[in-house]
Amino acid sequence: MPGRNVDPTLRDCIEDCNDCSDICLNEAMTHCLQKGGRHTAPEHMRLMLDCAGICRTAADFMLRSSAHHAPVCGVCADVCDACAESCEQLGDMDECAQMCRRCAESCRQMAGQAGKAAPKGAAAGMPAGGRA
Amino acid sequence: MPGRNVDPTLRDCIEDCNDCSDICLNEAMTHCLQKGGRHTAPEHMRLMLDCAGICRTAADFMLRSSAHHAPVCGVCADVCDACAESCEQLGDMDECAQMCRRCAESCRQMAGQAGKAAPKGAAAGMPAGGRA
Amino acid sequence: MPGRNVDPTLRDCIEDCNDCSDICLNEAMTHCLQKGGRHTAPEHMRLMLDCAGICRTAADFMLRSSAHHAPVCGVCADVCDACAESCEQLGDMDECAQMCRRCAESCRQMAGQAGKAAPKGAAAGMPAGGRA
Amino acid sequence: MPGRNVDPTLRDCIEDCNDCSDICLNEAMTHCLQKGGRHTAPEHMRLMLDCAGICRTAADFMLRSSAHHAPVCGVCADVCDACAESCEQLGDMDECAQMCRRCAESCRQMAGQAGKAAPKGAAAGMPAGGRA
Repeated sequence: MPGRNVDPTLRDCIEDCNDCSDICLNEAMTHCLQKGGRHTAPEHMRLMLDCAGICRTAADFMLRSSAHHAPVCGVCADVCDACAESCEQLGDMDECAQMCRRCAESCRQMAGQAGKAAPKGAAAGMPAGGRA
Repeated sequence: MPGRNVDPTLRDCIEDCNDCSDICLNEAMTHCLQKGGRHTAPEHMRLMLDCAGICRTAADFMLRSSAHHAPVCGVCADVCDACAESCEQLGDMDECAQMCRRCAESCRQMAGQAGKAAPKGAAAGMPAGGRA
Repeated sequence: MPGRNVDPTLRDCIEDCNDCSDICLNEAMTHCLQKGGRHTAPEHMRLMLDCAGICRTAADFMLRSSAHHAPVCGVCADVCDACAESCEQLGDMDECAQMCRRCAESCRQMAGQAGKAAPKGAAAGMPAGGRA
Repeated sequence: MPGRNVDPTLRDCIEDCNDCSDICLNEAMTHCLQKGGRHTAPEHMRLMLDCAGICRTAADFMLRSSAHHAPVCGVCADVCDACAESCEQLGDMDECAQMCRRCAESCRQMAGQAGKAAPKGAAAGMPAGGRA
């Protein structure tokens, strides 16, 4: 990703979000549609596009250096994990599942960093980023 | 909004998100850019596009009948409120501010409905939609 | 659609693009996925999301009062027509097909208006919308 | 960009569109807003977001292996060139201008390739990639 004005702490997460968004959209609209059956189950296809959409949105918040990127990254992490699980159950979508897991971790860190003023673990079960 | 397959409980919130997204993008790229000064302060312009972006994303989740729309609506409500506040401080963006407040309320209800299994007020300071 | 700063000549086309984008995304991710079979043929599903995507992009160009909206509207009209045809062949997607046809006409007018200095057909190989 | 299902002939163009979209959004919302003055002139800011938007849309068409990607790439090339010109006039946006030029060339090739089987003007009413 080019750009002298991208905050270095955001750069990796933006890249993961971009890659995850791209692979989810691509796999859904090529591999899944061509396979049919469980691959086009509404729940799976919706998750694939949910993941593509929220990853794109999270990347956009970070590209804008938005003050509100952390909660978006928090939701993004959850959707990525749900999408990874759905891919894992299908058995032939490993690359996509791995990208989702990686992006989930990256976004979860990003959501947490923004909230690190509050000492880790202080609020039990309340991860930073304003999400429970 | 047309569409026989739109869940009626989602319809109003989708419409509010669409309207809010449109007015934020439009006002930012016409009124704010033409005025300059405080209207093009990075924080304000970023919030305007943040709001346009997350509203669009929330609408898309609902249009897909996605199981994961509630947390997205929850974040959307917070961003809408922040954008409303920024518009209110400028003094000549009332229509945009009002649309943001309306969309915030609509999204907060949507986020709450999905989480209503957990009795209201049980977890202090823990609004439904899985966000604190 | 709210917004005092929306150019009145653009307002109807923005609304058609919004409605067309919404119905295509919604029908694809609910009706088509639930039906399966020909409704989830890659060509049809891709067209549905192509149409949702380009309609959204065209609306965004107009909401920004962009000088470059005409060629985007021109491409949008073609994709809408292709999507309408695909819906018509399926037989149970009339509302979506009609919305696509309506949006195609609206976008074609918009593309043509911007180029109307050059009389229709005068400049050989110069399709409306300022695209050479 | 990951993805076993991305058509190799599309891969480079997708990557250029992604990079161009990201840098335009990022520079507009950081560098330009911080500089103000000519950097926040409506025409320039609109072009920056136009470019970010159409590049994203073109990438999405290609990621879906859409049959209609060529005319979108054609319009994208024109918007990228206009954005490059606008950046060049400002004098301190070389990286962004260069990315836009590179993406314009990449998209123009993509728009041309799709139509090159049919010699120019040979198939009446069938402009290459929908654009002549």
